Amino acid sequence: MTETPGAHPTEPAHPTGNDLHLDLPAVGGRRAVLMAALREAIRSGRLVPGTRLPPYRSLAADLGLARNTAAEAYAELVAEGWLTARQGSGTTVAERAAPVPPTRARRSSVRPGPVHDLRQGQPDAASFPRTAWLAAARRALTAAPNEAFGPGDPQGRRELRTALADYLARARGVRTDPDRIVVCSGFAHALRLLFDGSAPVLAPAERGPLAVEAYGLGFHRGLLAAAGVATVPLPIDEQGARVGALAHLPDVRTALLTPAHQFPTGGPLHAGRRAAVVDWARGRGGLLLEDDYDGEFRYDRQPVGAVQGLDPERVLYLGSTSKSLSPALRLGWMVVPDHLVDRVLAVKGEREGWASALDQLTLAEFIDSGGYDRHVRRMRRRYRDRRDQLVAELATNAPHIQVSGIAAGLHAVLRLEPGTERSVLKAAAYRGLALDGLADYRHPAVTPEAMPPTDGLVVGYATPPDHAYPAALAALCDILPPSA
Amino acid sequence: MTETPGAHPTEPAHPTGNDLHLDLPAVGGRRAVLMAALREAIRSGRLVPGTRLPPYRSLAADLGLARNTAAEAYAELVAEGWLTARQGSGTTVAERAAPVPPTRARRSSVRPGPVHDLRQGQPDAASFPRTAWLAAARRALTAAPNEAFGPGDPQGRRELRTALADYLARARGVRTDPDRIVVCSGFAHALRLLFDGSAPVLAPAERGPLAVEAYGLGFHRGLLAAAGVATVPLPIDEQGARVGALAHLPDVRTALLTPAHQFPTGGPLHAGRRAAVVDWARGRGGLLLEDDYDGEFRYDRQPVGAVQGLDPERVLYLGSTSKSLSPALRLGWMVVPDHLVDRVLAVKGEREGWASALDQLTLAEFIDSGGYDRHVRRMRRRYRDRRDQLVAELATNAPHIQVSGIAAGLHAVLRLEPGTERSVLKAAAYRGLALDGLADYRHPAVTPEAMPPTDGLVVGYATPPDHAYPAALAALCDILPPSA
Repeated sequence: MTETPGAHPTEPAHPTGNDLHLDLPAVGGRRAVLMAALREAIRSGRLVPGTRLPPYRSLAADLGLARNTAAEAYAELVAEGWLTARQGSGTTVAERAAPVPPTRARRSSVRPGPVHDLRQGQPDAASFPRTAWLAAARRALTAAPNEAFGPGDPQGRRELRTALADYLARARGVRTDPDRIVVCSGFAHALRLLFDGSAPVLAPAERGPLAVEAYGLGFHRGLLAAAGVATVPLPIDEQGARVGALAHLPDVRTALLTPAHQFPTGGPLHAGRRAAVVDWARGRGGLLLEDDYDGEFRYDRQPVGAVQGLDPERVLYLGSTSKSLSPALRLGWMVVPDHLVDRVLAVKGEREGWASALDQLTLAEFIDSGGYDRHVRRMRRRYRDRRDQLVAELATNAPHIQVSGIAAGLHAVLRLEPGTERSVLKAAAYRGLALDGLADYRHPAVTPEAMPPTDGLVVGYATPPDHAYPAALAALCDILPPSA
Repeated sequence: MTETPGAHPTEPAHPTGNDLHLDLPAVGGRRAVLMAALREAIRSGRLVPGTRLPPYRSLAADLGLARNTAAEAYAELVAEGWLTARQGSGTTVAERAAPVPPTRARRSSVRPGPVHDLRQGQPDAASFPRTAWLAAARRALTAAPNEAFGPGDPQGRRELRTALADYLARARGVRTDPDRIVVCSGFAHALRLLFDGSAPVLAPAERGPLAVEAYGLGFHRGLLAAAGVATVPLPIDEQGARVGALAHLPDVRTALLTPAHQFPTGGPLHAGRRAAVVDWARGRGGLLLEDDYDGEFRYDRQPVGAVQGLDPERVLYLGSTSKSLSPALRLGWMVVPDHLVDRVLAVKGEREGWASALDQLTLAEFIDSGGYDRHVRRMRRRYRDRRDQLVAELATNAPHIQVSGIAAGLHAVLRLEPGTERSVLKAAAYRGLALDGLADYRHPAVTPEAMPPTDGLVVGYATPPDHAYPAALAALCDILPPSA
């Protein structure tokens, strides 16, 4: 091979470039593959700053590539700042800012998981409809107007609000229109907009203490406590939250309930109480916050419709994709009474600050094309099968254990003998089985007189992948106490 | 056609279904097209609740479809809740929750825009790299592990933090590693995490008043004011913010600056002052918040590196995709001093509550594959051309107008004679030309003695689409006052 001095400005007359061993994968565009290999070599420290690379012609010959391919890859990496080209000194690895050595042991963001995971709250991550979602993304992003890539409307994309208004009407009995829907990043974001920050939608002076259910998610209780919201627990019985107690709480003007499927005990709010809580909100000039976290998943009969349908001006309905699709998506919605829409928007700010317009457009297309319905139906069958497996396994191996809350949702409650919950949880931990006890969900202010504490386990049957589910069930049966 | 009574459970023996005129587009799967047409007819009110549909066989014959296709479309729409099938009464439009009639005129979310838009702050929405982004999404979502669709790490996806650590090192001279990066929804979200809410990262007692630049974005000032943060303005001269003033502000322990490209006046912070502000932070035990909002866009020489590189423990670096890619994406990053990482994560919460994991994975792949660099380079050329057009147009039509801040970014500042800014803005409004005056950006507490007010226009040259840019420039030249 004859080197012509000065033939390429970035190569010296007599190159002294290192030998460079690169293993290029056989598939993929050659230039992209070469660039990726060079980047990886730099990133991993194999090529340190200042290293001189072989001339592109040598490299091309070594690797069996066209010269142009190698030259273009060098030029591109120079433009990206990985390499430096200087007349007379060839192409070298750029003097990049050296990574800072960690000054102390860092938490690993990949924590080792439990052997068996029956914690509630998560849909089966392996079932995310990747192909259908990508197809919807392609259609949505191809069809989107240019303004979709500009600053966003804080209310959310109209395409999504229109799709949701339709969907929520037919699937959840919600009465609304796109102008009353506000998109957010999920239930916790909605709670923050309503209660937290310097100027929340529900100002402390107006809202009074917030009535909540005696059992609920500790994460939400913590969020409310951090926002300075006082909460008053309503006892729960087999008909759901005892909303009659609201009449005796003159300061309370807002209540947060899970009417379709009490979380975590599992029953729907009784029809009489649904009407009663709406009447209370009307009489008190109050507001019901309806947390419809898993309303789509009901197995043995038609889903229970949203209470919101009874009075859209007295109920603020909250939903998200976190159970139906994935918590990784960070999309939720608030269906807001007309008189509160402007205040919610004022708190959200002048422009959309959170929810990705790209995901919003994709979800709108996913709903409109029927993909969302198909996914929910598929998951409903899947979770019902999971539940049936759980029930069958318990009937065989622990027939003395009472299971409740199984008509809907992604979890069940297993009742335990009084005083045994902690020891059962300890046994589960030793077995590498992650799940929660009912005590974690109990509001600290509920007295035993108002509602005796119940020992029990909350079993999330949606979390494990299919292949791991039978072993998780076997572990569960192992740690359950034998019949007394 | 012979009807066999009872041949299909949802059809009565003697169907009395309405005639149904549907125009089906010629392309697309027949079943999907029929379903879309029926949904649209229901949605638009053409088919009202209770309407009986023709038997699927008649509809199939009318429309020239296979019977199966029509039967499947009906079944699917029944499952979705649009239609109801009942033995003996055929298939009818479901009694859906009727949409609530609007009780008052609603704001239209599509506000009429100005005729010409030269407002700053937005990249060209028409240039979003849809195809490359979708390709990256396909690769990223196909390759993602299942756990990516479960609850997210509040620090952000490791794939993205690794890609960002690389990118920021080579493109912006940031010294960091993936463990010190926290993903968020953009600059405003970062400000909220740092200052707003019930337990911000920078607690009021520790942080003292916040030093800011005498000119800055009103939106940020408003956000800080709402969070109860007192701000102290630093005057600006031709070398950027006069950081020497910090020595005389004993209470101040935190400063927020735009060192690469002062916003909006446009100059970089002088090298001596970059060093001085870091020295100040070291001596005071303080913190510099570095807002690197458009650091990638520098036209006439190498980009100015981040101040963060001088001392990663004293500078908290803030960036986002809002200028480089699109504000619709809602992805930003905080490069956090080691001693603050845990506090930022504690404020963000136990799980990712905002940033979409899908978008995070896609952006990581977009960066790693070189797509982000290519897009930034393409946009740099594009914006430089825009800037050159602006400068040339002014040189021809308004040579007496001084233009500054043109070495970088997406906007320029046009100086005006003292006292003329308001009348020029009024003339612009009459012409349908949207742009801002410098007065909007001035901190209200800056005295004329500390820094005399300057009349001027902030011209965003990235906002209009290509075809509208020449007319916008012509309108701008029209409203500029003639030479005095």
